[in-house]
Amino acid sequence: MSEIDVTLYFKEKAKEIEQALDTYLSQMEMYPEVIYESMRYSLFAGGKRLRPILAIAVAETLGVSAMSAMPFACALEMIHTYSLIHDDLPCMDDDDYRRGKLTNHKVFGDGIAVLAGDALLTYAFELMAQSVPAGLEGIGLQMIRELGQAAGVHGMIGGQVADIINEGKTANERSLAFIHAHKTGALLTASVRMGAILAKADAHTLAALTIYAKNIGLAFQIVDDILDVVGEEEKLGKTVGADANLEKMTYPSLYGIEQSRQMVYQLTTDAIGQLQQIDCDTSLLQAIAVYLVARDH
Amino acid sequence: MSEIDVTLYFKEKAKEIEQALDTYLSQMEMYPEVIYESMRYSLFAGGKRLRPILAIAVAETLGVSAMSAMPFACALEMIHTYSLIHDDLPCMDDDDYRRGKLTNHKVFGDGIAVLAGDALLTYAFELMAQSVPAGLEGIGLQMIRELGQAAGVHGMIGGQVADIINEGKTANERSLAFIHAHKTGALLTASVRMGAILAKADAHTLAALTIYAKNIGLAFQIVDDILDVVGEEEKLGKTVGADANLEKMTYPSLYGIEQSRQMVYQLTTDAIGQLQQIDCDTSLLQAIAVYLVARDH
Repeated sequence: MSEIDVTLYFKEKAKEIEQALDTYLSQMEMYPEVIYESMRYSLFAGGKRLRPILAIAVAETLGVSAMSAMPFACALEMIHTYSLIHDDLPCMDDDDYRRGKLTNHKVFGDGIAVLAGDALLTYAFELMAQSVPAGLEGIGLQMIRELGQAAGVHGMIGGQVADIINEGKTANERSLAFIHAHKTGALLTASVRMGAILAKADAHTLAALTIYAKNIGLAFQIVDDILDVVGEEEKLGKTVGADANLEKMTYPSLYGIEQSRQMVYQLTTDAIGQLQQIDCDTSLLQAIAVYLVARDH
Repeated sequence: MSEIDVTLYFKEKAKEIEQALDTYLSQMEMYPEVIYESMRYSLFAGGKRLRPILAIAVAETLGVSAMSAMPFACALEMIHTYSLIHDDLPCMDDDDYRRGKLTNHKVFGDGIAVLAGDALLTYAFELMAQSVPAGLEGIGLQMIRELGQAAGVHGMIGGQVADIINEGKTANERSLAFIHAHKTGALLTASVRMGAILAKADAHTLAALTIYAKNIGLAFQIVDDILDVVGEEEKLGKTVGADANLEKMTYPSLYGIEQSRQMVYQLTTDAIGQLQQIDCDTSLLQAIAVYLVARDH
């Protein structure tokens, strides 16, 4: 699968995901309106839809349709979106803009932003629980557990806490690796694993895909760090060097740009190597691994 | 079952619930420590443990052991605790004290308080998903869905949003009923229903218990409002009339104390009437209905 096909795959799947998110949100009652407006504002504020696309790509690779994976994929995007809303709050990163748009709390106020995040987090689990097909109840519970672990203190929240308590401290390898693996890596890994769990992947396939996911997740984050340093403000839609201003630890600040690029190359190569162990056509997942690090935004 | 027995039942069950909460929290990794300290601080800051006790009491009434109901009961308490942490934030009710102790954000800071709430909410669903016994997977998903609905925009969060947007406005019957039914009522109703769902209650029993729950939930809240007006500061551990200061709507401010008391009596009587429809010994649930409104704190 050539790179142009992956670009198209991402574009098409993002559209399907956005349609599904719109449908799920439309099914809800509309009072009090402001909380739905706030949830929608951040859910439809752009974004790559990387997590749901990963879940769907793995499911499709292993023979499960995008439609079957859709509610679980959308739950991942809701969790990701809630984390961005809460991370942007004045008491956290205090960001006024994200992807060139005002952050949720700048539009709706801090109180509603906290509640919109809470609501997206809660609805993610509700949506999963109500979307499990008959006969797959055990698989459904396994996916809910997977997402809970990845989003909670052992995953994303733990990473965000470590990020906060390390702010202003001198970067060190161990805490940097912890933050990346947890704050961003855990949910990306869960995206891949949930696609595999839904497809009833055997233990061997699940293990290979888990390493694949951890590698592309870290490579993705290092590329983000590199782009933050060398990128252009208008492309990213946020202040270049914003993390550096808060003295946050990044791979470029610890290892330099060149060594960081070398790490991205190695991680991607290793990720693709893992796919050889899987007994089906994994060209889509190979192409995604390359696509994620070849981007300029 | 006499009132003294209910007092003892609440005391014993609260102890069992606190032991279980401690065990569940102890199973977690302990880095970064501050987030666990923050979660524990609010989980063990006192409280009646009303929601988990209701779930257990209904389960026991219908023949399911407290031990079987415990993880789902504890999930309810985690959701309740997260909602208190977020409600107390400066961008919401801005409370410095709860039950006579400093609120979470006054001890750990606003950022960690937001994350501790997020973590408890997330862990509630993870705990449920990992605690479903083999053969009860469908029941497990039903309980997760029930809790998601009750805690989300159609329940607790919707009520909190309505409370925020009605602040400072003149009280009216419709918005007051909406806020009470959603902000507090939804989770209390889910507590009762989850106990019944776990016990595989038939539709008729579930319907009767749902009305029972809605009635005692509203009666409980009106009693809270009455105590807030007539209560003593030291008994409640918060400023008497705190809600009135924020010009929040309450039953006493809309209907007066005497009519509010009359409503409590009627709701409790109707709740007990519903229990007659259930084909087993419901004396514990009858006694709980009375116990909840006869309290002075």
